[in-house]
Amino acid sequence: MNKPQITIKDIARALNVSPSTVSRALKDNPDISQETRDLIHAYAREHNYKPNVLAVNLRASRSNTIGVIVPQLVHHFFSCVLSGIEKAAGKAGYNILVAQSNESYEQEVKIVHSFLAARVCGVIASLAKDTSQYDHYQELLNNNIPIVFYDRICTGLKTERVVVDDYAGSFAAVEYMIQTGCKRILFYGAAPHMEITKNRRNGYLDAMKKYKIPVDDSMIMLCDTRERAIAITPDILEGPGHPDGFFAINDETASGILYACKLVGKRVPDEVSICGFTDGAIAQSTDPKLTTVEQHGEEVGKSAFSILIDKLEGNDERSSNKIVRTNLVVRGTTK
Amino acid sequence: MNKPQITIKDIARALNVSPSTVSRALKDNPDISQETRDLIHAYAREHNYKPNVLAVNLRASRSNTIGVIVPQLVHHFFSCVLSGIEKAAGKAGYNILVAQSNESYEQEVKIVHSFLAARVCGVIASLAKDTSQYDHYQELLNNNIPIVFYDRICTGLKTERVVVDDYAGSFAAVEYMIQTGCKRILFYGAAPHMEITKNRRNGYLDAMKKYKIPVDDSMIMLCDTRERAIAITPDILEGPGHPDGFFAINDETASGILYACKLVGKRVPDEVSICGFTDGAIAQSTDPKLTTVEQHGEEVGKSAFSILIDKLEGNDERSSNKIVRTNLVVRGTTK
Repeated sequence: MNKPQITIKDIARALNVSPSTVSRALKDNPDISQETRDLIHAYAREHNYKPNVLAVNLRASRSNTIGVIVPQLVHHFFSCVLSGIEKAAGKAGYNILVAQSNESYEQEVKIVHSFLAARVCGVIASLAKDTSQYDHYQELLNNNIPIVFYDRICTGLKTERVVVDDYAGSFAAVEYMIQTGCKRILFYGAAPHMEITKNRRNGYLDAMKKYKIPVDDSMIMLCDTRERAIAITPDILEGPGHPDGFFAINDETASGILYACKLVGKRVPDEVSICGFTDGAIAQSTDPKLTTVEQHGEEVGKSAFSILIDKLEGNDERSSNKIVRTNLVVRGTTK
Repeated sequence: MNKPQITIKDIARALNVSPSTVSRALKDNPDISQETRDLIHAYAREHNYKPNVLAVNLRASRSNTIGVIVPQLVHHFFSCVLSGIEKAAGKAGYNILVAQSNESYEQEVKIVHSFLAARVCGVIASLAKDTSQYDHYQELLNNNIPIVFYDRICTGLKTERVVVDDYAGSFAAVEYMIQTGCKRILFYGAAPHMEITKNRRNGYLDAMKKYKIPVDDSMIMLCDTRERAIAITPDILEGPGHPDGFFAINDETASGILYACKLVGKRVPDEVSICGFTDGAIAQSTDPKLTTVEQHGEEVGKSAFSILIDKLEGNDERSSNKIVRTNLVVRGTTK
């Protein structure tokens, strides 16, 4: 109990060989006879020897640790991405340091500095909602640390990216709503500077345009939480605009719109259609269940890791962008 | 662009002083004159010097990295705990390595070995559903690495623990259901060997006993997912037992029971009351909203980190158990 871990020197002393013989034997170097290697391996196993990864990494002057930045940990989509990264990293023998920006630029900068100090070999990140400067990420690149952005990407830097096809997912969802009878669909999005807002809004706009349905500014709302949807939607439903469809940037917001419809007695989907984006646990729990765009978070995470590894292990020198396909899951909130 | 990070030796060469002077100046050692310290700090800042944490940790022969084991990352309660740990660790200057067991004992063993190899200074863990041997955790303790278990704790080892008051939370929920008219309440739990199942079942049993309501084996079911609840509950509702209440070990299961009630036309809460355990996003999304026991995951995570740090920094040599209070949140699925 409580004995310290044994080192290569301890093994060398015990077996009366040099530390370098032990080190080479543990790496199965053929310069050392098979007999000696077997002996040293057996002794190391018996005494529960573990290589000191810190020391190994220091010598190799890089770690096998990847830093992962998540805007929020308590969030279905980001949990799925993190899970995908974790599974892929575990299989490849990499560890992941995880930190959340809590949607704050300042926090994001601090995390990047802590990752630099921890000598991570690569970073996988999604931007905080209020990040619009990128010097901290440039600092990683200046230090030869590759970055892969996912979901909320940074277009200002030349880095790898994994995104879901926000545009196509939105276009398909809005087209489906139009084809099932909606005449006036509102778009509830996040902050307008964010790429995901732009791309999903463009999908919405182009679908409306295809069917020659006019869109004015009053139909595009800044609303990306359940609470805000519950707060603003009743007035909109009872106002002069008479919306008969809502396309929301996430499932939380869509669930809030559904709740608001029930509050003012609008029948879903007979009078109002609603479509979300994510397909998490919420989408299965509402009544009726949510029609939504499935975002495949785990696949986003796995792709991000695999692109980073290609970069780290020199398998791919090109910049690469990966687009993960979405698909529309039609349930009870649309006709 | 792409220049390597500068070292203490580089600074020493550039300023024509010894590396030890640079090192001491950067630590603001008063043996070095204020003038020299200012000069060295300015040069280090200008050239973006970062201390090599791996080297620093190696010298101090411990890292500032904590390993965190989560049974599942895509899970509301565990996301909240992880978020609490991450926030507390970030403030205290610790990094966290995160890995998920995916409810597999074998995976948990692998993670523990990877944490040992990464020389973590402490571990925060919750057991996989199928873990019933603890040798891998004993190995951490043998290596002087303290462990704090949370939620799904290990009673077989002498370690720190943070649990929610499962017993009191369950007792209060079941008592409330009895007081609002339920005569025959079923318990849907996880695997019987798990501490959380035992404690929540005991809370249920004692509340029933207090009100002299008989309980037989057919009233205690192994069911802890939404899918299984939807599969088994319709037959139970239409069978001879006539349950009028369900107390479920998590919100997913409770949402499945609610769905099953709607399938067979049972009105909730008029004919059947339902109570879950967690209070995540699901509980707000169902119709009616779920009555549930709020589990305060972030507080569990923050407490686990704070106990670990006390242990690591020698502030507390006693074993400590922390119990995080739950509270019953009454919403629409109970009377």
